[in-house]
Amino acid sequence: MKFTQQLEQKVRLVNKVIEQILTQTGWIERELAEPVRYALAGPGKRVRGSLVLWACEIISDKANSDARTAAAAIEMVHTYSLIHDDLPSMDNDDYRRGRLTCHKKFDEATAILTGDSLLTLAFELLAKQISKPAVAVRLIAELAEAAGPAGMTAGQMADLRAENKKTNQKSLNRIHVNKTAKMFRCAAAMGAISGGANEKQLKRLREYGLKIGLGFQIADDILDVRSTSEELGKTSGKDAKQGKATYPAIVGMEKSLRHAEKLANEAVAALEPFGSKAETLCQLATELLNRSR
Amino acid sequence: MKFTQQLEQKVRLVNKVIEQILTQTGWIERELAEPVRYALAGPGKRVRGSLVLWACEIISDKANSDARTAAAAIEMVHTYSLIHDDLPSMDNDDYRRGRLTCHKKFDEATAILTGDSLLTLAFELLAKQISKPAVAVRLIAELAEAAGPAGMTAGQMADLRAENKKTNQKSLNRIHVNKTAKMFRCAAAMGAISGGANEKQLKRLREYGLKIGLGFQIADDILDVRSTSEELGKTSGKDAKQGKATYPAIVGMEKSLRHAEKLANEAVAALEPFGSKAETLCQLATELLNRSR
Repeated sequence: MKFTQQLEQKVRLVNKVIEQILTQTGWIERELAEPVRYALAGPGKRVRGSLVLWACEIISDKANSDARTAAAAIEMVHTYSLIHDDLPSMDNDDYRRGRLTCHKKFDEATAILTGDSLLTLAFELLAKQISKPAVAVRLIAELAEAAGPAGMTAGQMADLRAENKKTNQKSLNRIHVNKTAKMFRCAAAMGAISGGANEKQLKRLREYGLKIGLGFQIADDILDVRSTSEELGKTSGKDAKQGKATYPAIVGMEKSLRHAEKLANEAVAALEPFGSKAETLCQLATELLNRSR
Repeated sequence: MKFTQQLEQKVRLVNKVIEQILTQTGWIERELAEPVRYALAGPGKRVRGSLVLWACEIISDKANSDARTAAAAIEMVHTYSLIHDDLPSMDNDDYRRGRLTCHKKFDEATAILTGDSLLTLAFELLAKQISKPAVAVRLIAELAEAAGPAGMTAGQMADLRAENKKTNQKSLNRIHVNKTAKMFRCAAAMGAISGGANEKQLKRLREYGLKIGLGFQIADDILDVRSTSEELGKTSGKDAKQGKATYPAIVGMEKSLRHAEKLANEAVAALEPFGSKAETLCQLATELLNRSR
């Protein structure tokens, strides 16, 4: 099966779980039904969720029910982070995924509460739908550590503080790792844990996730320079305008491209022990660099 | 021991766990250290955390380590909700707990991210520090359900939408239950679960929590009318100015007071099977109505 077909299949699986949560009663009171649906059912790339499923398949041949739940949970957390990131006091963006951002479609208060809801819902989902408590607790710990003040929110904070300031590559790396790469590492780890990976397998997949996550963010920096808003589904050229610390701004375009490629190669190398089972994840490492949005 | 001394003792216990998290490395990256400390180490009443500890004591005679962790977690979630609630696009308040609100002390982006961090940290804490996975999962499910789109965030959304609109007592009740009472019910439940309660005991404590939670919110509505800003530590008289749906506005002051008393009595009645062990929680039910802030 071609990579794009494989990805489409995974996106459908993730969306199915999300759609179940949106339609089952008990999860979401009526005031939040519309904005939560708008945010969650939007045309996301679902890269993190797909990564959870693929990582599980490497370990247990099939993306099991726990992996599907974990995939939906990480997509909820990712979606919340975009909603809050787009707020006027943060990155201030009007478009996301080719549509109005949540605070533009509704209002700021609704966007804040919709983000808060999705973040909380992700943990509720993991606590209620994972087969074994011991697995649930590990998945929750992974996700909270990656998304919280030891990871993503710290990266977002640092990213805002670095605007219009001199930043070196080391500091920028730390921002990108916290803001983006730890969530990719988490996705790979959640898939591995769902599949019942041993410590060695988990370590390999975590390394892979961190590398492609950093590569993904560098590619994002590059895309912001090179693409049009239509291609991205969000405002392009914003990084430079906002004085963001980005790879192309600090080390130049050529070196950024080379570094992203190096990371993809290292990610692929980390999966060597899995042999041909890792084929799709190896392709993903390359695809993330060559994407157009 | 007098009630105020008992409360002080519990507040110290909760603050000790919070202080551990703030000083241990690994939980919070440096960008967020200052705002997270400002928010968490502020002079909160810690009613929800104390309720967790007392509910545990009723079941197992001692507030065990799980209850202390759960108490800190629910205080983190409560603190996050205040930070976001105070934002300009939400309730727009400059003072909280007698100090500048987070977005006034820092800025809006920092306040949003600090709230997000505390919410995530609460789940990380529960996933990592509760003795048994089966207990951790139950506590996380309770907290997420109470704080998320089936509870608190839905209540906050409804509360904002009800501004300057005709609201009846039934709708207001639903708002108060979602916004406030479910978190109190959750606190009582978390304490009971930490103590190893059976289903009957859990049910009683959940009923107690829901009743005092609703009573607490009605008392809050009353205090907003009656108190000065100095007494409250936050801006008083704001509800009327913002056209908020409140008990005094809808049923009048006299009926509000009577309804709050009725709820306190029902809460006390729910604890009848626990006999003298429930003494402090019975006192709490009354104290919450007679507080000055």
